[in-house]
Amino acid sequence: MTLILGRQDVEQLLTMELTLEAVEEAFLEHGQGTTLVPDRIGLFLDEYHGVIGVMPGYMEGMKAAGVKLICHHEENPKKHNLPASAGLVVYHDPATGMPLAIMDCAYITMMRTGAATGVSVKYLARADAQAVGIVGAGAQASSQIAAISRVRDLKKVKAFDIDSAATARLLEEIADLGLETEAVDSPREACVGVDILVTCTPARTPFIRGEWIEEGMHIAAVGADMPHKSELFPGVYARGDKWVTDLINQALVTGEIAGAMAEGAIGEHALYATLGEIVAGEKPGRENETEITIFKSTGMAIQDVAVAKRVHGLAREKGAGLEVSITP
Amino acid sequence: MTLILGRQDVEQLLTMELTLEAVEEAFLEHGQGTTLVPDRIGLFLDEYHGVIGVMPGYMEGMKAAGVKLICHHEENPKKHNLPASAGLVVYHDPATGMPLAIMDCAYITMMRTGAATGVSVKYLARADAQAVGIVGAGAQASSQIAAISRVRDLKKVKAFDIDSAATARLLEEIADLGLETEAVDSPREACVGVDILVTCTPARTPFIRGEWIEEGMHIAAVGADMPHKSELFPGVYARGDKWVTDLINQALVTGEIAGAMAEGAIGEHALYATLGEIVAGEKPGRENETEITIFKSTGMAIQDVAVAKRVHGLAREKGAGLEVSITP
Repeated sequence: MTLILGRQDVEQLLTMELTLEAVEEAFLEHGQGTTLVPDRIGLFLDEYHGVIGVMPGYMEGMKAAGVKLICHHEENPKKHNLPASAGLVVYHDPATGMPLAIMDCAYITMMRTGAATGVSVKYLARADAQAVGIVGAGAQASSQIAAISRVRDLKKVKAFDIDSAATARLLEEIADLGLETEAVDSPREACVGVDILVTCTPARTPFIRGEWIEEGMHIAAVGADMPHKSELFPGVYARGDKWVTDLINQALVTGEIAGAMAEGAIGEHALYATLGEIVAGEKPGRENETEITIFKSTGMAIQDVAVAKRVHGLAREKGAGLEVSITP
Repeated sequence: MTLILGRQDVEQLLTMELTLEAVEEAFLEHGQGTTLVPDRIGLFLDEYHGVIGVMPGYMEGMKAAGVKLICHHEENPKKHNLPASAGLVVYHDPATGMPLAIMDCAYITMMRTGAATGVSVKYLARADAQAVGIVGAGAQASSQIAAISRVRDLKKVKAFDIDSAATARLLEEIADLGLETEAVDSPREACVGVDILVTCTPARTPFIRGEWIEEGMHIAAVGADMPHKSELFPGVYARGDKWVTDLINQALVTGEIAGAMAEGAIGEHALYATLGEIVAGEKPGRENETEITIFKSTGMAIQDVAVAKRVHGLAREKGAGLEVSITP
């Protein structure tokens, strides 16, 4: 039998605490070398301006395998009244290969992307970090703040989006965290006086300049996960003391990293570590109060699979979802 | 909403006629260059002696996209009382990327693999072919015969399996086709006096010799779809006048083709055509009564997706399956 879990089921079961635990465990296993994360592939449906991404992942220690199937169809909201991004995580028992559960991937994707930033903050931001600047107030933003607030004693959030209504919506969404919030007028202002900077936009050209970055800052660059995307100018990388990513090959082909390399801001071997290596203790995270750290997040299937395992376990415990018979 | 279709639903809806139509259309589009078939990837779960294969495919003309997720876990029957191979086809609307249906893949895989052989027979076997020899009487065998019987006026089947009970089972399964059947004692005997030879075994070492192949024969080599597998000795390829495959890159890495190349039986550019090119009329199929043709079948996701589209359409028409809400 296979358990079907819709978006609402997942939303009711999954908390940020659980997501952070699962995602940190995924990074730990990645750093220990007990995971499989094949290069993601996709069906590029140019005719429909869309792509169906296919992301398999396996964690030996967690005994969890699965595949995320996620579409990005930019015209969905306007043309079809559907979300631009949607899909499934198929969660498999690695021992038998059977699909144990099929669940909505949108909420998981949002939560695990926030949690990856949270894990990067835990290991790379200053221990006394209190203020976050965030550029991009779309679907990913609130989970970024939620995750960070659980690993640091946050006091303040400064937010910018080119759509000021989106900024207002974000600040409302995170109201229950009890933080001081400020909508600012430019990306530059979002960098002033903050300890952590998060960029989570669909930008195709960079908008954060190196000279805006202050000593001791940690940056989580989340938006630019593809060759055509870029948020940080090469000058930001030039100022960074440690730049860290999730999957090296995937990071190297983002517009942002490729651009920084092309301009000589970083050398080909300038990557300090993967976040997994830091979580696994293979390399130290932040070592002093002044270094500038950058986490380039691109997303790994094992984050989704680790979270899917928790969701599946919780659903079984609480009797959520619908059991169906698909495979024999 | 997403339609869930279990093995029984698929079995009730899908006929070999429909499968042949769908698979021929998939080959046609492949030959016309309007498909996407990324290299298949997989999670190789060595600890469990299993693999979860991940196969996405898209047909522009048919407006069909999808991903097959199929496990091969050899120890499943003995250890878990589960089939060695099982999984899903997730059938997507390419226009929106949304999962329209999730269905069992085992029956589809069996039927479309038979149909691929059927399409190869249609274009490559002699028009007057009447007798088939089949080596390997496992799960794939009956659909091979069923497909061939729909494209040629078959009279006789000779079957061999190392397990004679399997041979007996196969001959019973195909009894309704009304053919003369004969269980033979060796692979060699299965080659005598037949017009078409099918090999569909899990063999890791070759067992069909070049000197057993008669003029005018067509061979569908179905079993060896992976690097560690091989059914035909290089000498068979040396005798072949035209060797044809589905996906060139995938065929080149099978143990069988790699072995034939290593021994110089075929050159690196000896491939005559893809089956798609022949179906699309880019290259002629069989041109005379004496040439020996070989179809090396390895399996393409678009075969599964083409069939899944038919199954989905039929299920909607007949109200089969279960509608569930997974994605928004």
